[in-house]
Amino acid sequence: MREGHMAHQGTALSTAFVNTASEAQSCQLICVQSIQHCLQMGGSHVEPSHMRLMQDCAEICETTATFLLRSSPQHNQVTAACASVCELCAQSCDKFTGDAQMKACADECRRCAAACQQVAQMRPGGAAGAGHQSVP
Amino acid sequence: MREGHMAHQGTALSTAFVNTASEAQSCQLICVQSIQHCLQMGGSHVEPSHMRLMQDCAEICETTATFLLRSSPQHNQVTAACASVCELCAQSCDKFTGDAQMKACADECRRCAAACQQVAQMRPGGAAGAGHQSVP
Amino acid sequence: MREGHMAHQGTALSTAFVNTASEAQSCQLICVQSIQHCLQMGGSHVEPSHMRLMQDCAEICETTATFLLRSSPQHNQVTAACASVCELCAQSCDKFTGDAQMKACADECRRCAAACQQVAQMRPGGAAGAGHQSVP
Amino acid sequence: MREGHMAHQGTALSTAFVNTASEAQSCQLICVQSIQHCLQMGGSHVEPSHMRLMQDCAEICETTATFLLRSSPQHNQVTAACASVCELCAQSCDKFTGDAQMKACADECRRCAAACQQVAQMRPGGAAGAGHQSVP
Repeated sequence: MREGHMAHQGTALSTAFVNTASEAQSCQLICVQSIQHCLQMGGSHVEPSHMRLMQDCAEICETTATFLLRSSPQHNQVTAACASVCELCAQSCDKFTGDAQMKACADECRRCAAACQQVAQMRPGGAAGAGHQSVP
Repeated sequence: MREGHMAHQGTALSTAFVNTASEAQSCQLICVQSIQHCLQMGGSHVEPSHMRLMQDCAEICETTATFLLRSSPQHNQVTAACASVCELCAQSCDKFTGDAQMKACADECRRCAAACQQVAQMRPGGAAGAGHQSVP
Repeated sequence: MREGHMAHQGTALSTAFVNTASEAQSCQLICVQSIQHCLQMGGSHVEPSHMRLMQDCAEICETTATFLLRSSPQHNQVTAACASVCELCAQSCDKFTGDAQMKACADECRRCAAACQQVAQMRPGGAAGAGHQSVP
Repeated sequence: MREGHMAHQGTALSTAFVNTASEAQSCQLICVQSIQHCLQMGGSHVEPSHMRLMQDCAEICETTATFLLRSSPQHNQVTAACASVCELCAQSCDKFTGDAQMKACADECRRCAAACQQVAQMRPGGAAGAGHQSVP
């Protein structure tokens, strides 16, 4: 992410939002790639529940990113849902020991889950709950 | 929605999923249209929190639709979040009395919220929790 | 789609836009379902290029729907791309003779491709190119 | 983007795809933020055609990113459309001289447009047109 993206963001809380949005985009990205990887591998890699989790994860991550970038006051349920799906996706990827793509996917899912859990408790705009208007 | 879309869906529970997905798509559709309507109207129609709710609503509805169409066992938090956002969006649209587009948007948001609340308690695939495989 | 969705749309051209957006949403819906169907079936159903086409189709249909619902003057390249991807997806589904889900998917893809091809030549708002403001 | 994301990508061409996908995600991100910025600013910032361009840009960038991450052979029309929309969005942002967020948005849109124009001529998987399978 380049500096300019944060031109109008000022508080520590806003930074947490933007960082989590960035993590969610990275997680969406690697899930989309991992789906293709699994299709190439075939066999247990295309087991329906594994593939569905990666699809769910990519989708909820995308939504999480945009809720956070809008500093949405309604982000809490979305980031909590994202943390849950990311953790389950990581566990599903863990089953493929020795597969570098699955390992990278699990690692990113766990980073995203941790970031989402952190912001799921926060209100946008900091203690004042001021929302997107939090330009200093 | 045409019959063919349900070719591989069999149970009453699956029907609830598909119907709610369809409601969520309708709600996404009208929110996208309503955002443009409000931009045309200007004034209080482009108040940031109102516009943000319609964006949030369109986004979470889209995600809800795909989770349900995949019969995702992780749909519960997503449909619950969708119900909350839809209800808030409806309330925000209610403020514009006499505006037919806002009235239609509020009505659809409430239909979607009700449908989401209903399925938020369900497991995919019926009592057995069998997931997408529930073709009879 | 309910009447209220079109509360602020007046011309025949706007109707074509809204109808095509609805077709694109239906096509996204059946592609998302068909991906899960193919994962359940396994074998040649999860061949990477087939699965990728259905993912591409779901994604470009979603984007097409929102461009049209915004009456975007930039819709032309998007609807043209959508028509191409839908046609290729239909051809890929055709290979699975006797599979009702694939047949339904191919049929919907062709309906969407035809609708997209029709509007790809149009400007929003009709002959005057008036954009979204085209309420009579 | 972290190294792990490219674990299964080998050729220079794949790198161009992944880099452009990353640029498209950055562009989506800043457009989503910029929409909120403009709603806060009001006035000419919420002019419908300007707001619509930022929405169109965010949406086509998201689609472009996923097509490229899937190494989709059908990416060409999508990346070409993305380049066009990004360029128009940049021009629309240019009108707000002295606005740091609009300047950052215009800059990112131009970076994304340039990256998209470059890959719009490429086939996935390099000279051999081998697609996603291009692991060395």
